[in-house]
Amino acid sequence: MNAIILAIGDELISGQHVDTNSAYLSDRLATVGIRALAHWTIGDELSAIEDAFKRAAAAAELVISTGGLGPTGDDLTRQGLSDAMQRPLALDADGLAMMEAFFADRGWTVSEANRVQAMLPEGSQALANIHGTAPGILAKLGEATVVCMPGVPHEMKAMFEQHVLSRFGSQSGAIVRRALKTFGMAESEVGVRLADLMTARGDTRVGTIVKAGVITINMQTRADSADQASRVLDDIAADVRRRLGVAVFGEDDATLGSVVGELLKPARQTLATVESCTGGLIGKMLTDTPGASDYYVGGVIAYSNRVKEDMLDVPAELLREFGAVSQKVAQAMAEGCRKLFASNWAISTTGIAGPTGGTEEKPVGLVHFALAGPSGTSTTYQHIAGTREIVRIRAARVALNMLRLALLDAQ
Amino acid sequence: MNAIILAIGDELISGQHVDTNSAYLSDRLATVGIRALAHWTIGDELSAIEDAFKRAAAAAELVISTGGLGPTGDDLTRQGLSDAMQRPLALDADGLAMMEAFFADRGWTVSEANRVQAMLPEGSQALANIHGTAPGILAKLGEATVVCMPGVPHEMKAMFEQHVLSRFGSQSGAIVRRALKTFGMAESEVGVRLADLMTARGDTRVGTIVKAGVITINMQTRADSADQASRVLDDIAADVRRRLGVAVFGEDDATLGSVVGELLKPARQTLATVESCTGGLIGKMLTDTPGASDYYVGGVIAYSNRVKEDMLDVPAELLREFGAVSQKVAQAMAEGCRKLFASNWAISTTGIAGPTGGTEEKPVGLVHFALAGPSGTSTTYQHIAGTREIVRIRAARVALNMLRLALLDAQ
Repeated sequence: MNAIILAIGDELISGQHVDTNSAYLSDRLATVGIRALAHWTIGDELSAIEDAFKRAAAAAELVISTGGLGPTGDDLTRQGLSDAMQRPLALDADGLAMMEAFFADRGWTVSEANRVQAMLPEGSQALANIHGTAPGILAKLGEATVVCMPGVPHEMKAMFEQHVLSRFGSQSGAIVRRALKTFGMAESEVGVRLADLMTARGDTRVGTIVKAGVITINMQTRADSADQASRVLDDIAADVRRRLGVAVFGEDDATLGSVVGELLKPARQTLATVESCTGGLIGKMLTDTPGASDYYVGGVIAYSNRVKEDMLDVPAELLREFGAVSQKVAQAMAEGCRKLFASNWAISTTGIAGPTGGTEEKPVGLVHFALAGPSGTSTTYQHIAGTREIVRIRAARVALNMLRLALLDAQ
Repeated sequence: MNAIILAIGDELISGQHVDTNSAYLSDRLATVGIRALAHWTIGDELSAIEDAFKRAAAAAELVISTGGLGPTGDDLTRQGLSDAMQRPLALDADGLAMMEAFFADRGWTVSEANRVQAMLPEGSQALANIHGTAPGILAKLGEATVVCMPGVPHEMKAMFEQHVLSRFGSQSGAIVRRALKTFGMAESEVGVRLADLMTARGDTRVGTIVKAGVITINMQTRADSADQASRVLDDIAADVRRRLGVAVFGEDDATLGSVVGELLKPARQTLATVESCTGGLIGKMLTDTPGASDYYVGGVIAYSNRVKEDMLDVPAELLREFGAVSQKVAQAMAEGCRKLFASNWAISTTGIAGPTGGTEEKPVGLVHFALAGPSGTSTTYQHIAGTREIVRIRAARVALNMLRLALLDAQ
């Protein structure tokens, strides 16, 4: 089975917004053996939408669109599909009921403006949206199956996973993908260690992609069944892990925050954070993981020197003599934090995130880190290249990775 | 003038990699008045590439492709264009000279494998690539102008800016864009208030896009000059602001974090945060803005009840009687935080981010907020729909918006 994926919206075709939905859908369709032939992006233009549905339905067995299902005047997907199908829009009882249930859960009622979202082409079927007001649409156009979903990614993903993917099952073999994530090894070194795997061009492919210090090793293979493909990937993943060692911190959706939690939890140990330049980002990364309260006690965002002194007992002399961005202050912050929260571990960051504020001695991107733990405090520093955003993300990851390596050592 | 943009590559159509080149090109073409009609993404398949070039050249005046110019067997853009043009590939002297210069700069010589990159369809012209080996291609296909560029974004961007954009100059006027950002008004309400602007389909377009509660009003217009277009947008922006009132918090790159800073700074007032369910995200959002230390003192991530009691003096009875997720506790947290940091303002969040941990009385997505300020403390709560990530982002924004509205009131 093959598919064409449409992304509909002026904000996409104008370049104001990057479409990530189509890549997500291609990736997920592959897991049940459905191959994407093309992604088409078009604007909020009725004739263009009608034309795209018609041409896609003539060229592919499955047509999936995202976007244009909102309640406003520039949401034209319903009308475009209706025109392509030559079936008028009519108020869909199921769609309306879904919206009413969504609104009732929140103590609201469906407004006149929202009712238009339950107007579907006659003969089509509404798909429930658990995260938003717009129902999706399932319809036939000629021989093709058409699915229309909202453009908001988390609404689309929930709808796709619950109501769309299961309809198609696994029909033509399976492509299985897996990712290993690494931190702390240079990309060129990863490239050298995996060179032979990365140049192979058969059913099994290995590639890397880098983002703010995390190098993800993408592996994929195609086989008659998902089980068979998974077994092939098991072997490759084991091989990659052997080659890259402790740099590999997890698979697929693992983050440094979640992995640190998986190490702390069984050890019944707790963590606190004190952040200057990262400004809460480490806390945010740790609490991205549900259940983080089992090991993450809390933290201080010590953005001003006064907070460093008053709350964390960083001696004023250290701040005067070495400056806030220094090994000594990072160490005092971590130790003060560990005491304040009575936690087993505490991590600190203090640095110059930029874009201004750097000096010759302490340039933008310089970040000092400390980790206070049961057997003392260790410190490190890095010069991080990049924008303010990159410096902060990478600094947060360096701090979490420092803790990860210490926890592995302590095992 | 109008354009169709092609993105070519198996990694794109398979969903392993998100195409950002097409959005970049749309955005940049608009600055010289060229409107993108569609983006098409296809895989490394010769017939699909040939077909896409033919259909695009029939539908648009300008066709721009990215990807498929590398030296390996899966780089098929040159051959695909050659087939579409019905002109054979031939070694291009200019293209070869460009590659030789690129390699010579690095002390290398052009390998046999690389020479294929200088094979261009007869009658086309090579475009220099300062960051990589593959020359670009400029050709005619029927009435259309075709430009092929590499897929690596920084190679593509340099080539486009230096050798492509200037060719088209500003021949059909300029398209200018602006965005207004709103928070706190339902999308359907925004749609009703802007209905006539959003359904207009002339040179001026108004559309909306929603992301975790922020509704962005995208406005664009086309005029003979950028100045003229800017004046038209001034009027539209003023009109939109009148219609949406205080829901509009800023333009273009403004965030709730940066806007709150712009209000605090001239008033010489300071802010502290105390976060439970948002876990540092509000601090992160505030410190995304360079110079936030002028008004943001710091915060506490109060992820455990003990931290709420010990550091913020939240009475244990409140926690017992009402639970951590309650109006009373949110209020005590904000007041304790304001005192602890001796700041003018303090904002607090406490809620159930999910995906588990909800009860009938306190479902996932329930978040309580408090704002302690010079003239007392106000509280509010929301039921936020969505994933853990969305609940947290939106909660952080609700808290910042609460402060923004109080600061506007206090002006």
